[in-house]
Amino acid sequence: MARLLVLNPNTSSAMTRAIAIAAEQAAAGRAEVSAVQPPLGPESIEGQFDEVVSAYHSLDAVLRIREECDAVIVACYSVHPVIGALREALRQPVIGIMEASILCALPLGARFSVVTTSARWQPLLADGVRALGFWDRCASIRSSGLAVLDLERLPAEEVRSRLVAEARLAVERDGSEVICLGCAGMAGLEEAISSLLGVPVVEGVAAGVGLAISLVAAGLGTAKEGLYRPVDRRPGAGLPEGIARIYEGAEPRRGR
Amino acid sequence: MARLLVLNPNTSSAMTRAIAIAAEQAAAGRAEVSAVQPPLGPESIEGQFDEVVSAYHSLDAVLRIREECDAVIVACYSVHPVIGALREALRQPVIGIMEASILCALPLGARFSVVTTSARWQPLLADGVRALGFWDRCASIRSSGLAVLDLERLPAEEVRSRLVAEARLAVERDGSEVICLGCAGMAGLEEAISSLLGVPVVEGVAAGVGLAISLVAAGLGTAKEGLYRPVDRRPGAGLPEGIARIYEGAEPRRGR
Amino acid sequence: MARLLVLNPNTSSAMTRAIAIAAEQAAAGRAEVSAVQPPLGPESIEGQFDEVVSAYHSLDAVLRIREECDAVIVACYSVHPVIGALREALRQPVIGIMEASILCALPLGARFSVVTTSARWQPLLADGVRALGFWDRCASIRSSGLAVLDLERLPAEEVRSRLVAEARLAVERDGSEVICLGCAGMAGLEEAISSLLGVPVVEGVAAGVGLAISLVAAGLGTAKEGLYRPVDRRPGAGLPEGIARIYEGAEPRRGR
Amino acid sequence: MARLLVLNPNTSSAMTRAIAIAAEQAAAGRAEVSAVQPPLGPESIEGQFDEVVSAYHSLDAVLRIREECDAVIVACYSVHPVIGALREALRQPVIGIMEASILCALPLGARFSVVTTSARWQPLLADGVRALGFWDRCASIRSSGLAVLDLERLPAEEVRSRLVAEARLAVERDGSEVICLGCAGMAGLEEAISSLLGVPVVEGVAAGVGLAISLVAAGLGTAKEGLYRPVDRRPGAGLPEGIARIYEGAEPRRGR
Amino acid sequence: MARLLVLNPNTSSAMTRAIAIAAEQAAAGRAEVSAVQPPLGPESIEGQFDEVVSAYHSLDAVLRIREECDAVIVACYSVHPVIGALREALRQPVIGIMEASILCALPLGARFSVVTTSARWQPLLADGVRALGFWDRCASIRSSGLAVLDLERLPAEEVRSRLVAEARLAVERDGSEVICLGCAGMAGLEEAISSLLGVPVVEGVAAGVGLAISLVAAGLGTAKEGLYRPVDRRPGAGLPEGIARIYEGAEPRRGR
Amino acid sequence: MARLLVLNPNTSSAMTRAIAIAAEQAAAGRAEVSAVQPPLGPESIEGQFDEVVSAYHSLDAVLRIREECDAVIVACYSVHPVIGALREALRQPVIGIMEASILCALPLGARFSVVTTSARWQPLLADGVRALGFWDRCASIRSSGLAVLDLERLPAEEVRSRLVAEARLAVERDGSEVICLGCAGMAGLEEAISSLLGVPVVEGVAAGVGLAISLVAAGLGTAKEGLYRPVDRRPGAGLPEGIARIYEGAEPRRGR
Repeated sequence: MARLLVLNPNTSSAMTRAIAIAAEQAAAGRAEVSAVQPPLGPESIEGQFDEVVSAYHSLDAVLRIREECDAVIVACYSVHPVIGALREALRQPVIGIMEASILCALPLGARFSVVTTSARWQPLLADGVRALGFWDRCASIRSSGLAVLDLERLPAEEVRSRLVAEARLAVERDGSEVICLGCAGMAGLEEAISSLLGVPVVEGVAAGVGLAISLVAAGLGTAKEGLYRPVDRRPGAGLPEGIARIYEGAEPRRGR
Repeated sequence: MARLLVLNPNTSSAMTRAIAIAAEQAAAGRAEVSAVQPPLGPESIEGQFDEVVSAYHSLDAVLRIREECDAVIVACYSVHPVIGALREALRQPVIGIMEASILCALPLGARFSVVTTSARWQPLLADGVRALGFWDRCASIRSSGLAVLDLERLPAEEVRSRLVAEARLAVERDGSEVICLGCAGMAGLEEAISSLLGVPVVEGVAAGVGLAISLVAAGLGTAKEGLYRPVDRRPGAGLPEGIARIYEGAEPRRGR
Repeated sequence: MARLLVLNPNTSSAMTRAIAIAAEQAAAGRAEVSAVQPPLGPESIEGQFDEVVSAYHSLDAVLRIREECDAVIVACYSVHPVIGALREALRQPVIGIMEASILCALPLGARFSVVTTSARWQPLLADGVRALGFWDRCASIRSSGLAVLDLERLPAEEVRSRLVAEARLAVERDGSEVICLGCAGMAGLEEAISSLLGVPVVEGVAAGVGLAISLVAAGLGTAKEGLYRPVDRRPGAGLPEGIARIYEGAEPRRGR
Repeated sequence: MARLLVLNPNTSSAMTRAIAIAAEQAAAGRAEVSAVQPPLGPESIEGQFDEVVSAYHSLDAVLRIREECDAVIVACYSVHPVIGALREALRQPVIGIMEASILCALPLGARFSVVTTSARWQPLLADGVRALGFWDRCASIRSSGLAVLDLERLPAEEVRSRLVAEARLAVERDGSEVICLGCAGMAGLEEAISSLLGVPVVEGVAAGVGLAISLVAAGLGTAKEGLYRPVDRRPGAGLPEGIARIYEGAEPRRGR
Repeated sequence: MARLLVLNPNTSSAMTRAIAIAAEQAAAGRAEVSAVQPPLGPESIEGQFDEVVSAYHSLDAVLRIREECDAVIVACYSVHPVIGALREALRQPVIGIMEASILCALPLGARFSVVTTSARWQPLLADGVRALGFWDRCASIRSSGLAVLDLERLPAEEVRSRLVAEARLAVERDGSEVICLGCAGMAGLEEAISSLLGVPVVEGVAAGVGLAISLVAAGLGTAKEGLYRPVDRRPGAGLPEGIARIYEGAEPRRGR
Repeated sequence: MARLLVLNPNTSSAMTRAIAIAAEQAAAGRAEVSAVQPPLGPESIEGQFDEVVSAYHSLDAVLRIREECDAVIVACYSVHPVIGALREALRQPVIGIMEASILCALPLGARFSVVTTSARWQPLLADGVRALGFWDRCASIRSSGLAVLDLERLPAEEVRSRLVAEARLAVERDGSEVICLGCAGMAGLEEAISSLLGVPVVEGVAAGVGLAISLVAAGLGTAKEGLYRPVDRRPGAGLPEGIARIYEGAEPRRGR
């Protein structure tokens, strides 16, 4: 049975727990799930500054336990820089939940929209969708105006109704046919939103779990020619243990 | 347990059997698989003429048994017109193996290539990759020069070595990092090719099965707003039974 | 004098007659026009399901009389799958009216819009414009909300005023400079709409006739290298006569 | 009968005569053709410097006789700046032969190539194809290395064989299915090249004549909203007569 | 110290003076600035017709004094045809202010907008942004409805408030983060608009001066391979002196 | 006089010194230059893993001295994640040398190429060029096969001749007209390579210095609406001082 490691790159333990639960429900017994968060860094990720700080500590945290999993799921809804860094360091598949949710949305409708949290994510996710190469299928990226931590702090009903309102605009004004929930903290809301709106709603943690199980079952891992070839060996003195070990060349585990 | 229906849109029973076996191996007990082929039409699909003829009979064949499955996998490596037609008629997910294989390849490397059969598929799949919106991530589409039916007729070793030769050009000249096998008839060759080349090789039937299981597990179905909204009710007199029933408005089964 | 065959791929005889009249007026004595419709299939084409069903019967209908024309015009405003199938089977030019109308619009203004019928056509024609490669010049695709058959059923004035209202939005909100009428059933309305709006209005059947005459005069036919090379010879048993003859390899007529 | 004015923007009278003959053959009695060239400027157009110099004198030359034609064909294979300037000044259609030849090529095959003269045209026509919005359908732009005036000076056979050699590379290496001849001075060579290569070869002057006849027959003219709205009235003192008259506001003839 | 030549391609002496002052302020003693305007042509440039007329006389005016400068700045906010023509004729850098302003805007924010004068510039600048290759970073092109000469004629406050209103829409509706002022006649307004709006506002003349100083300091000049290789030698009889000298082959000054 | 801070994000002091010298030469007295490197991290940056590790320590190093400069130049030839992070934290302009070198190359020729070091940079810089929005103007990204540290270790002549060889392929095979040197460690080689090749060669550190001086002179800073709005205030306990101060909300210095 595939062993999935879910990384929450922020330091909110409550969010890590919620993500772990969502991942286990999605796995539904088809995979073993464990979760990890960095020991230090921002308690929510609200932009590129937070990405850089969280990437460093997250990278180290995952690398310390990299032998214990068959795939890594990065549970931040973005093209988080830790994803590329982990792909260089590992042979297992490394999946971002943004990418996974869009990959699930594409066969379901002509155009998808992402409904996310605060305003800065709008341009940042738009650039992310372009970077992943999905721009032509994207109807819109819409901010709900909620902060990441609002998702836990506000009454569930208020969160839901603000997300539904924004998703409805995506459908009615932007011609979107499928909604992707643009934050790991929205896990668990997909059914309610889908039944209110009448369109498929894809949640990223579940999508990431499904894709990871699929790839592991097919014996597929990260390509080691080209962009993700192994990290060059160099001195690692002074760096945290997980990172240092990669520089000093402990050979990563072989996937297929 | 999800019930998957795999459609082979050509009339080669040998290929239908081979595809069914590949699908069952990929499902590995996680789903029930059945396979269907049209009663009439070309015995291999080598272009748009064949697509039109096979789409008609395939559409009818699937619609006659549409209640008996939770997802449909169209096992022709193309943007086959039956995919869009089935999505209008059904609420279940309908997945093409071309789309599925690319969706699996994307998280594994920066660029993918498709290695396909005869020369006409080169421009046709290039247009298909554009239509799906994945062009920016595509390093190349390469024809091996093999006909679809050669995959069964020629010695396995010759088939393998011609595909490896073409895939190697994709990696070395085109900068591809992941190879997608561009014909349902290539199922079963992925491991051999991957170990010879040292890059991940994605096979479409397996990719389709994995994605279908994922979508069914997440309760996701085809969007019914926009491009795939239900077929308008109209007279169906004279048309084959499966098609006629859709025109005459028997309501499709509800997904989520 | 060029002999043009206009295919109406739906089974509405009234629409076939109207299209034939529009084509003859456009030809204005410069070409001989005949029209054909399939014996079976939907009486209007409202999406991909209808395209698949109509393509099969239309393909056969045209192929039975393929020696009797110098060019084929497919009078459905879409990238209808029968167009590619016919191009494989024939050496004569095969022209879709969507493509023809856009080709006429491009030299007249910076951006064009398509004003079409019901809502599903919006994403479908948007994909079609992308597939044809004209996306950068397209200001918008707008649905009038009319069904194809409404064009005949409703009072002429109502049809006209709804099309003008939608076209005006294309000009004023989307920055369109030229309007393409997005349904063969709109033939005959172009002058009225143009004089009300003050912008050029291109009608597809007329555009198709003009382009067909041009290509025939220049001795140009469908390329037989690459995407449209001749259909591979295979058994045709059980298939309708026009289709079977192509599979069994009766050589298509040679153009230039 | 439509009156077509063909502008040769260079000052080679031999080329003007050759273009006029090609245009008349293409019209084949379906239109009246007259030709014009500027009194001053370069005797061939080999880049943007020549375009600017020739545009000024050509603009004036056409405007002096603008009442005497129903459409203007600009017989320089480029996005020559006089095209846009004339479209602002006139209501008749104004057609460039580059645009016309590509519009004819698109329905005939999946990808086209342009085979042109000297090396500078390669980047210039590539930019032109992008500006027109046809980049996705373009397989390549290839320079034959011939200068424009070589087309007249060299033995016909040498010209032909160099163009065929280059066109063959377009087909075999670049996957082109249709060839566009990239210089007005190549008119008359299309049949020979096509029969040697076995692919359709489109000649721009003929394509421009066909398109112009089509647009005039359909009553279509340049859009006067947006990019090509009429020139603002301003003082014209000191400018040549044709240009001055436009600035001083003599109203252009009304098309549809 | 770099000697910069600023070309105002229209014949408004007031605008030439204003542009010269703006350029000198931007140079702030780091470069010597001189300005030139053509002796004949439109007094403002409002489209492609004006571009063609002004390009001819501007080209000649600059070429007469081409030895006296280290870089040329073309102070018309467009992809004015004189830019490419000058690049063929010169080895010094030739910079358009539209290009320069966008190059400055790109490192400051995710998306930029251009706020320009009259309505025709909207499609024309949109095409220009595409031609320069910056389309993916462009949030919008917005017309203020002001004519070029209104910038001098109307009260400063009215001009400012109309530009601010339009720029605010660019920020609030289109998601623009940086504003480019889309007319040389707007020089001097950037600070007022920026402080009212709270976003960076880039003025093209200043941007052009900064870029020119940079390129000259780095010893960089126009590439003479490819698009901008020197003009072919040909007879120049009858043409104005500056242009004729280029045709007759006086060798352009060598940059690096 | 503008105070420029040049960040070398790797820990090679030799490279920091070389970059500082290059920056001072480029400034040529027009600006004050200081240089900084992180205390910890990889001694060269060879991919995304190195980017993540270096970004963290570089971010902190710059933020500790953020009051002491008017602009920051990030001297790693990539879309290094520290660039976006710094733009959120600062109001001064923050410039990457990749972006700066391309911005300088664009006005000089139709297409540019980047000649870089080791093979992984090929796909990484290709993605970077796309992310910056310059893909349509990029002829190629070519790896010389040299490691970053080879630039210092190998004899100067060998380095030069390998870069020239690769740049020549860019010009002759890919149609490039301008070469960008794709590594900060190549500063100082531009003149030699340019004179050997005969095309303009842009060096990133010099380009960054020129652009920074320009932006500071024009009073322009990072946009604080949208993508780069200030970092949200949150607890910074345990984080390095420069980073922690940003989280704890010490207000960044105001630019214009």
